[in-house]
Amino acid sequence: MQPIPWQDKPQNCNDVMWRNAANPIIDRYAIPTSNSIFNSAVVPFEDGFAGVFRCDNKAVQMNIFAGFSKDGVHWDINHEPISFLAGNTEMIDSDYKYDPRVTFIEDRYWITWCNGYHGPTIGIGYTFDFKEFFQCENAFLPFNRNGVLFPEKINGKYAMLSRPSDNGHTPFGDIYISYSPDMKYWGEHRCVMKVAPFTDSAWQCTKIGAGPIPIAIDEGWLMFYHGVINTCNGFRYAMGAAILDKENPDKVLYRSQPYLLGPAAPYELAGDVPNVVFPCAALHDAKEDKVTVYYGAADTVVAMAHGKLSEVIDFIKTNSL
Amino acid sequence: MQPIPWQDKPQNCNDVMWRNAANPIIDRYAIPTSNSIFNSAVVPFEDGFAGVFRCDNKAVQMNIFAGFSKDGVHWDINHEPISFLAGNTEMIDSDYKYDPRVTFIEDRYWITWCNGYHGPTIGIGYTFDFKEFFQCENAFLPFNRNGVLFPEKINGKYAMLSRPSDNGHTPFGDIYISYSPDMKYWGEHRCVMKVAPFTDSAWQCTKIGAGPIPIAIDEGWLMFYHGVINTCNGFRYAMGAAILDKENPDKVLYRSQPYLLGPAAPYELAGDVPNVVFPCAALHDAKEDKVTVYYGAADTVVAMAHGKLSEVIDFIKTNSL
Amino acid sequence: MQPIPWQDKPQNCNDVMWRNAANPIIDRYAIPTSNSIFNSAVVPFEDGFAGVFRCDNKAVQMNIFAGFSKDGVHWDINHEPISFLAGNTEMIDSDYKYDPRVTFIEDRYWITWCNGYHGPTIGIGYTFDFKEFFQCENAFLPFNRNGVLFPEKINGKYAMLSRPSDNGHTPFGDIYISYSPDMKYWGEHRCVMKVAPFTDSAWQCTKIGAGPIPIAIDEGWLMFYHGVINTCNGFRYAMGAAILDKENPDKVLYRSQPYLLGPAAPYELAGDVPNVVFPCAALHDAKEDKVTVYYGAADTVVAMAHGKLSEVIDFIKTNSL
Amino acid sequence: MQPIPWQDKPQNCNDVMWRNAANPIIDRYAIPTSNSIFNSAVVPFEDGFAGVFRCDNKAVQMNIFAGFSKDGVHWDINHEPISFLAGNTEMIDSDYKYDPRVTFIEDRYWITWCNGYHGPTIGIGYTFDFKEFFQCENAFLPFNRNGVLFPEKINGKYAMLSRPSDNGHTPFGDIYISYSPDMKYWGEHRCVMKVAPFTDSAWQCTKIGAGPIPIAIDEGWLMFYHGVINTCNGFRYAMGAAILDKENPDKVLYRSQPYLLGPAAPYELAGDVPNVVFPCAALHDAKEDKVTVYYGAADTVVAMAHGKLSEVIDFIKTNSL
Amino acid sequence: MQPIPWQDKPQNCNDVMWRNAANPIIDRYAIPTSNSIFNSAVVPFEDGFAGVFRCDNKAVQMNIFAGFSKDGVHWDINHEPISFLAGNTEMIDSDYKYDPRVTFIEDRYWITWCNGYHGPTIGIGYTFDFKEFFQCENAFLPFNRNGVLFPEKINGKYAMLSRPSDNGHTPFGDIYISYSPDMKYWGEHRCVMKVAPFTDSAWQCTKIGAGPIPIAIDEGWLMFYHGVINTCNGFRYAMGAAILDKENPDKVLYRSQPYLLGPAAPYELAGDVPNVVFPCAALHDAKEDKVTVYYGAADTVVAMAHGKLSEVIDFIKTNSL
Amino acid sequence: MQPIPWQDKPQNCNDVMWRNAANPIIDRYAIPTSNSIFNSAVVPFEDGFAGVFRCDNKAVQMNIFAGFSKDGVHWDINHEPISFLAGNTEMIDSDYKYDPRVTFIEDRYWITWCNGYHGPTIGIGYTFDFKEFFQCENAFLPFNRNGVLFPEKINGKYAMLSRPSDNGHTPFGDIYISYSPDMKYWGEHRCVMKVAPFTDSAWQCTKIGAGPIPIAIDEGWLMFYHGVINTCNGFRYAMGAAILDKENPDKVLYRSQPYLLGPAAPYELAGDVPNVVFPCAALHDAKEDKVTVYYGAADTVVAMAHGKLSEVIDFIKTNSL
Repeated sequence: MQPIPWQDKPQNCNDVMWRNAANPIIDRYAIPTSNSIFNSAVVPFEDGFAGVFRCDNKAVQMNIFAGFSKDGVHWDINHEPISFLAGNTEMIDSDYKYDPRVTFIEDRYWITWCNGYHGPTIGIGYTFDFKEFFQCENAFLPFNRNGVLFPEKINGKYAMLSRPSDNGHTPFGDIYISYSPDMKYWGEHRCVMKVAPFTDSAWQCTKIGAGPIPIAIDEGWLMFYHGVINTCNGFRYAMGAAILDKENPDKVLYRSQPYLLGPAAPYELAGDVPNVVFPCAALHDAKEDKVTVYYGAADTVVAMAHGKLSEVIDFIKTNSL
Repeated sequence: MQPIPWQDKPQNCNDVMWRNAANPIIDRYAIPTSNSIFNSAVVPFEDGFAGVFRCDNKAVQMNIFAGFSKDGVHWDINHEPISFLAGNTEMIDSDYKYDPRVTFIEDRYWITWCNGYHGPTIGIGYTFDFKEFFQCENAFLPFNRNGVLFPEKINGKYAMLSRPSDNGHTPFGDIYISYSPDMKYWGEHRCVMKVAPFTDSAWQCTKIGAGPIPIAIDEGWLMFYHGVINTCNGFRYAMGAAILDKENPDKVLYRSQPYLLGPAAPYELAGDVPNVVFPCAALHDAKEDKVTVYYGAADTVVAMAHGKLSEVIDFIKTNSL
Repeated sequence: MQPIPWQDKPQNCNDVMWRNAANPIIDRYAIPTSNSIFNSAVVPFEDGFAGVFRCDNKAVQMNIFAGFSKDGVHWDINHEPISFLAGNTEMIDSDYKYDPRVTFIEDRYWITWCNGYHGPTIGIGYTFDFKEFFQCENAFLPFNRNGVLFPEKINGKYAMLSRPSDNGHTPFGDIYISYSPDMKYWGEHRCVMKVAPFTDSAWQCTKIGAGPIPIAIDEGWLMFYHGVINTCNGFRYAMGAAILDKENPDKVLYRSQPYLLGPAAPYELAGDVPNVVFPCAALHDAKEDKVTVYYGAADTVVAMAHGKLSEVIDFIKTNSL
Repeated sequence: MQPIPWQDKPQNCNDVMWRNAANPIIDRYAIPTSNSIFNSAVVPFEDGFAGVFRCDNKAVQMNIFAGFSKDGVHWDINHEPISFLAGNTEMIDSDYKYDPRVTFIEDRYWITWCNGYHGPTIGIGYTFDFKEFFQCENAFLPFNRNGVLFPEKINGKYAMLSRPSDNGHTPFGDIYISYSPDMKYWGEHRCVMKVAPFTDSAWQCTKIGAGPIPIAIDEGWLMFYHGVINTCNGFRYAMGAAILDKENPDKVLYRSQPYLLGPAAPYELAGDVPNVVFPCAALHDAKEDKVTVYYGAADTVVAMAHGKLSEVIDFIKTNSL
Repeated sequence: MQPIPWQDKPQNCNDVMWRNAANPIIDRYAIPTSNSIFNSAVVPFEDGFAGVFRCDNKAVQMNIFAGFSKDGVHWDINHEPISFLAGNTEMIDSDYKYDPRVTFIEDRYWITWCNGYHGPTIGIGYTFDFKEFFQCENAFLPFNRNGVLFPEKINGKYAMLSRPSDNGHTPFGDIYISYSPDMKYWGEHRCVMKVAPFTDSAWQCTKIGAGPIPIAIDEGWLMFYHGVINTCNGFRYAMGAAILDKENPDKVLYRSQPYLLGPAAPYELAGDVPNVVFPCAALHDAKEDKVTVYYGAADTVVAMAHGKLSEVIDFIKTNSL
Repeated sequence: MQPIPWQDKPQNCNDVMWRNAANPIIDRYAIPTSNSIFNSAVVPFEDGFAGVFRCDNKAVQMNIFAGFSKDGVHWDINHEPISFLAGNTEMIDSDYKYDPRVTFIEDRYWITWCNGYHGPTIGIGYTFDFKEFFQCENAFLPFNRNGVLFPEKINGKYAMLSRPSDNGHTPFGDIYISYSPDMKYWGEHRCVMKVAPFTDSAWQCTKIGAGPIPIAIDEGWLMFYHGVINTCNGFRYAMGAAILDKENPDKVLYRSQPYLLGPAAPYELAGDVPNVVFPCAALHDAKEDKVTVYYGAADTVVAMAHGKLSEVIDFIKTNSL
């Protein structure tokens, strides 16, 4: 397996996570039709990495594209969006697709995304090879966003985080968990984590949503997530992290009161939607004690942040809300 | 079995459905603690009828109460709300309960209602005797309202209509269907029917939601529903009906362009929420060609409307949108 | 010519205008398909009266219908809406029609109404006999409502009052005047009258719109109009009146600070839209010193108010804003 | 002193407070210029009662008027609004005056009202005889409403309840207390009571505001207040009551979870603002164990409700939130 | 005649239109009083070019200024706004002027702009020499913006595109056409082009408005326009183009599904209003196959984009919505 | 005393005030926990300067911190927020603190800030040494912001400017003055200055609020303030100045129609809240004819602007609204 993409912490940096100096690693015009490429997912694949990328085209239609990389930094993204075959159901409508996540469970790579079916809900698909893709039943009724699978079954069932929404620029949003015996029918919905009180942690007081696939650690599940504050000039998205109980992941053990990464770099402050840091994937190497988060910046480009896994965990535990 | 409550059509009435002269049949103060009793469900039970009633108390807390009647018109409603035991899961939170529906499937009476779990969603319970009640897993994530079961399994699965919502006075809403093998996990979500264009049928152009349990008829499923228009002085709720395909109930065969009953009586025009006709239950007698709809009026009282089943069906077919 | 409909002022009434005791003179269900009949226009015609009525049907589609009366109180309204032939242009789209006004100029009866053409604007048509109707070019671009013609040319041109609007439940609105040499092209737009400051005359502080065809009087033009206040529970429409300069009708000579008629009767306080008094037509008899105003009540029914013309004029002049 | 106006509890009434059968005791047109008379204050005066009445005129300008009654039921209200002389300052602007309260402290009758000074704030005035009135400095900066004095000094200072607001149809509002050594400068602002959680007591979950002058009872201060819920068709105002600590009235000892009186009578359900019960004054007779509350109904008329003082107090204590 | 300003396409650029390397060609402080200069119009004039520029001063008052250039890139803008004489009417009020367009028809230069007359509407003026200017009647009632004349009469009448609006930051807007025999009275209003469905072309799904004067080409009229999407952090304006039928310009032949130029350069992403590309003028040279568009960037500065006329036309036709 | 920080006007600069070339002088991460440092106050202190700084931490909690500087440009800011002791009252709640101002009156340094007490209001404190701080009663009821003391008593009383607000991103706001005999009770509230009409000075048409402590000059009080315009993409804050009457500071003598400094530098155009120039403090040297204003930029950093005092005053007088 390839080593995950990495840069050491810059000197004079006191933060627990830091940006890659080559950011943004994927430009908005990286494929010929694209207006923007952001909020995308990557996984180790064969001798390198594969990914599913949100590329909005110049008509500002949202779709997801497969891509491949040897090093996780330089990517070849297909010029055509993913074309799905029928999975566990006949083909269902999909008006648009965005904000994908990817994880390997048992024998295949599962992909979830925000799927347009009379409004946003959670689409599910799978692939064995990133060439042929199969689309399954949507997990939920609209309106929902940020559906994120756990990377293994929990108590014998698939488990998915999501954020119930409305049909617009939702000004609220908490993280829930649901379970399924078969990736087709879902239930046992539980509230996992709600927005924080303004006076306790304002960066996450308007809405929150799960980001990368949760990472199994000794303490439980490490879940990076985005939090939003509604300033007088719009939403500002930053990244935090929480640790969920391993067996009962609707139980929050720790949750970062400060953010881990907030919009401050030029490519985060300006773009199609200013002031957005939106994590969608993470690669980690437990032995090397490294974690690298891929995040969309300003709804325009893809960037990376790095951290020492142990330091991130320690930071969450010592700065818990 | 008792005959269903009934009054013949008044002379000079040309409408396909008409009000009971004794309306409202249940007063807002019918039990000592109530502020209002409305949006309630009834079924044939033993030698008469049983019902589940929405009674908001004088603190304006919403809860559901069992009640019994010999004739379907005069009701004894319990003074204490229904207390649930654990059904197909451990007991889950319920901040409030409202707008119940009831139907008998196989061996028991199933109840659905709008359940407060971090916002409104669809609660499910059952009873064998209207004395002991059991609460199951919520069908869906929040936010949802107007969850209505079909009175029998369809293609071997339970089927439920619902209206995905937001967490406030939702200004939108369409009717969806979902299926479950076990009343615990739900999937195969399909859009059934959307609001009508303003210029075609304005009374149902803002939001629509299923009302009583659908009635099996030769043509398919007769579904009464409410439709809403947003006037400059607020929402106005009226009642229409549609006929869904028997095997594929996400397929609408006919749908009434005019309403069947709109707010016009004094108890519909004034009350806690003026201008509301909100059907939640229907009793029908196919042999007698009768259908009686129970509806909440002005979010304050319970009223009844009657119609000849064949005439209602004919009206829908000849006035279809 | 028939005398105009009339009732003397009730004893103990100190108001300058009073309601007809038979109100509402036209019920919401006066024709078989109607949900409501309101905001309608009448004129003397042959040996009685003719009118154009807004009848919303039970699908709540808005359209205009011709009607006839011997006495101005009892009306025969056609059961089919007006069907137009092409007037001064090819037939143009009309998604809906509402709030008509009618006046006789030179050789024919001109009708204006709120016409649905990609939103509300002012439709124009004419008839010679209330049997055959011709539709002309819309006067303006959307969005506009309450287009009201003067009953004669002013300085050789047709003149129309209107209220520019937006495409929803417009929360603003002032009265403008426009001129046309030919009923096809319009220009010379001038602001006539704006909403009043809240502290001066709150009933007309949110929006105002012309009502009946202006009446030529010695002092100028007597213009009844509606004014709206936005209460915490919605819009409240009342009726006032102003006197415009005869030659330069964009000049307001007098304008009633108090309203002349506000919602207070039961049929004005409750209905499809509570708290609406909306005048659309007036019959007057200068010799008899009488004026009778037809107004829509609660967006549901048609009612009448009466006054002595001289007293109304005097009231406006002595209570001018 | 005259006995306070009173009616015994109707038979079959189980409520702790009940309406006067003669309601509304003051009609909207009780003085020639009025559009509505409501939200008004009364006190014992000489051998009967005096009052300060909110009369909106037919231009819907808001002002306050003095009135007198022998029995507290039949009132002579002046036809001219109160004219103020300079009190503890030069005359300040007052764009409008509404919702007065009155109480006697030490040597004079103090009046507070919602005063228009670049928006609503709390005006203060006094009179010795209800003939000559003096206006003082406004208590607070805008925006504020429902300023209510305690009927005696507390810890040597004047004390006033109020509800900070915004400049529109404020969708929030809690009750605060402020103190003054001299009726001119105010400080020591404390929050007394906030809206209730929706699930605990929804009728008071949107905003609350003090009503009549608090009544000294053994347990502390009996404070009637209004609470508001925001339904999908507008605000609904009901009346509750709380008991505040005698020495530290920012401490709430008891607070009614159910309302004491909610809109249900026809004159409360329909009017200029439907669904409003708004208490502004109370007369009580401790020996007779009686309390009579004057309240505005539907922002249109004045009505009365009665209760046994001991029963009201007991109700609050046994149904405390 | 001077050649139009031009730069060849940069190497490695695959877009159909590209930015001038000297952008922004006019700085926000180009005249002493200006806060910003943008959304401006230019035409060939004498041996160079003339223009009408929107310069907001440092009180942020909006007005239009004449300017001159030899090469179309370097501009001398007058320090005083245009002062108008009476044209086809007495002088009418103008509270502000912005977003001018200019075209030569028959014997003079016609200017249209957004004119403040009780809200925004379309002002019309003309000049023969860019020294003396004459103001005519406004074309329409308020509220309207983006009035753009065709450069020649169509079927014997003047023709103008416009976008009916409301009185604020209008969240909707489609393009209409109106005709006039005399530049004074306008009629025959037709809808030309509406916003695109979100799923088809989201960059133009909120509102659209005509930009430069349409250019006569073989296929019809080439109309550049702006389209707007409402992101969670505000409006984003991009530029597209359509081809209208030559004789019946309310008929759209082709319309670009992708945008031609979207905000991406620093001076487009940041400024008084971030993320705005707003075209107001175009110079073209059919022989040289060149078109240069002037556009306002971020409501702050003026910039230029270039394209090969034939390639732009081909792009629209092959990427038509 | 130290000279105030200063830079001469750059060549080619024609503005009356100009930016310091070292801007931003305080970075967002200047202390370890900070997310942003802005909207802060400084005063001469001992042989240099002291200040109170708004530092939002990385949980985006708002608090105020003491800091010290020799030259007014390079600052040592404490890493812990100010801890208050009880001043003229028991300790009161403070959910958050932001936007401080500081001035020396008589014997001590008084600090005001926006204090979280059930919403924003004006907190008051004092210090003798910037080591020990004492908190007093809040000046007003919520909701209020931008409380700014005059640097000396006026007519024997303390005087404070403030801007009554609501509990959100207030879309309105005018400047008022209040007086206190003792810094505990406040009254004699007067409106000083309201927003400007859009057509006169749009940059200050949405809300205005006092900035630095007013400066005593010959003409009266020089008051720098911020003004806000609501663009389609959010609020834009700029800086102006007014001159108030010395004895009656609710009387405005002059007020700048153009702004003195508007967002244009990169650190003003991008940051946590783009397009903000928000002045909170000024140092002046009358003999040297210099004034230096400290302002928050983009709600992220601290910057400085300089001007000649006489030129600023002259500019206001010759460009008065």
